[in-house]
Amino acid sequence: MAAYNLHYTSAFRLHKPTLSSFSYRQPILCHAPRKMTTSQDQSSYRASITADIEAHLKQAIPLKSPLSVYAPMHHMTFSAPPNPAPALCVAACELVGGDRSKAMAAASALHLMHAASFTHEHLPLTDRPKPKPKPKPTVDHPFNPNIELLIPDAMVPFAYELSAVSDDPTQDTSGRVLRVIVELARVMGSQGIVDAQYREVLVSPLDGRELNDIEWVDDMCRRKEGRLHACAAACGAILGGANEEEVERLRKYGLYVGIMQGYTNRLGRRVKELERVVELRNLAMKELDHFKGRKVEEISSFIVGL
Amino acid sequence: MAAYNLHYTSAFRLHKPTLSSFSYRQPILCHAPRKMTTSQDQSSYRASITADIEAHLKQAIPLKSPLSVYAPMHHMTFSAPPNPAPALCVAACELVGGDRSKAMAAASALHLMHAASFTHEHLPLTDRPKPKPKPKPTVDHPFNPNIELLIPDAMVPFAYELSAVSDDPTQDTSGRVLRVIVELARVMGSQGIVDAQYREVLVSPLDGRELNDIEWVDDMCRRKEGRLHACAAACGAILGGANEEEVERLRKYGLYVGIMQGYTNRLGRRVKELERVVELRNLAMKELDHFKGRKVEEISSFIVGL
Repeated sequence: MAAYNLHYTSAFRLHKPTLSSFSYRQPILCHAPRKMTTSQDQSSYRASITADIEAHLKQAIPLKSPLSVYAPMHHMTFSAPPNPAPALCVAACELVGGDRSKAMAAASALHLMHAASFTHEHLPLTDRPKPKPKPKPTVDHPFNPNIELLIPDAMVPFAYELSAVSDDPTQDTSGRVLRVIVELARVMGSQGIVDAQYREVLVSPLDGRELNDIEWVDDMCRRKEGRLHACAAACGAILGGANEEEVERLRKYGLYVGIMQGYTNRLGRRVKELERVVELRNLAMKELDHFKGRKVEEISSFIVGL
Repeated sequence: MAAYNLHYTSAFRLHKPTLSSFSYRQPILCHAPRKMTTSQDQSSYRASITADIEAHLKQAIPLKSPLSVYAPMHHMTFSAPPNPAPALCVAACELVGGDRSKAMAAASALHLMHAASFTHEHLPLTDRPKPKPKPKPTVDHPFNPNIELLIPDAMVPFAYELSAVSDDPTQDTSGRVLRVIVELARVMGSQGIVDAQYREVLVSPLDGRELNDIEWVDDMCRRKEGRLHACAAACGAILGGANEEEVERLRKYGLYVGIMQGYTNRLGRRVKELERVVELRNLAMKELDHFKGRKVEEISSFIVGL
């Protein structure tokens, strides 16, 4: 079994509070379907989704009263490092024939949850054990120190609010929206991010044995990034009107994409050398076989370059 | 303008992780309507609701895998100090003719949100200003120190999950459940608890001037306890099938109850001497005039003894 020294690579590096990780190429409305031919097209597809999610979030979090809450919420939302899960949610919705707008609230909620958990993961606690191999930096911001604790407590409920208000009673979507809220709640809590964060915290003060254990790494990638991306793809499918088989296939696709993303976050470029990643890519592509003739090239962009 | 030195009184004092604040007199099912005659009856009514909410939460948070998350979540849920808002939610539901079971998930969600925010309010942050007039104690528990930060991050999403799964598709309740999720999300975040907590944090390191300002105290009682109880009563009314006028009257009733509760939390027994509290009680009772002939005695128990 191969062993690795883990550290947080570019995907986990803290970003300055600029919007450099977002582009502004597309409006919030959905774009016309087209055939993908190159990896450049695939990259543009993902960039257009990311821009739409950002536009949706900017509308949803205006700099309004109470500024004590909205200003830092705005800051933390847009300074969080990029995460592919929200865009995957939208791509899954489009793959099953849903309009992009249907998944925009859930995708925004996923970004808010990611940004909130990222902020809490970097809080300066008095008796927090020093993580190895190097301490994580705290988040840089111009606000009162307590804001790092409190604002994520407002961002997470806001994520569920965004999802709940996206329901259109005239379209008979309430059942699907409620199902997505359950998915989003579970992936944030005991069956997702918090469970993984706590396991990471318990390991970090130890002697590093687990950190060099590829089985432990695989388990963490599955619990953290895997579950988040599985949830994202399943939510997109649910909102796009998929049947149960499609939802579960896309959930699996998201799981494989997420585990690969987890390896990339922890191992950087070395990830390409791993047999496990080749295996995950094949498993992911196999799930997409079911969707032949649909936007497969678009959604497969999430494993290109991993 | 009267001036007060504020401090956290019995309602905010930390409880040992026992269940002494709950009673076990009633099963989870609703009880038969009856006529209230004495304050002892009113007290029993509230106690029976509290017992039902606890039973619901015990079913919802079993000590199952992952124990790393569920064990401390269980601990923090049942060791949080009592808060009347969840019981008020159930009483409002029953006042408008709804079955108690309809409001149980929302009431449990309110308790989880209260317990989560209480825990985060007592986190040991390195650079957190020392509050005056005396520092708040941190929460006593047998778990890893980081658990105080992480577990509330799982409890809040779990609150929304509980609400979402309470929907019964055969009863056409999805619209009401989604509306309640929006109410619960807003009261936790920028229009409720977090907004109030942050304002309190900003004031605590100052010279104490604001702490002696009754207008500031009134504003904080309105923002924190007021909004929480207003939300609780409105949610109960929505789930009980109330019309819009009833929802808004009960929201106002909850607001007045909450402000009175806020004064009690801050001033203890001295609250009875305040003209403002007499005024709030009259305003609250006025809202109940609309519900004559229904369970008015039961719900008015929330202002008895304040």
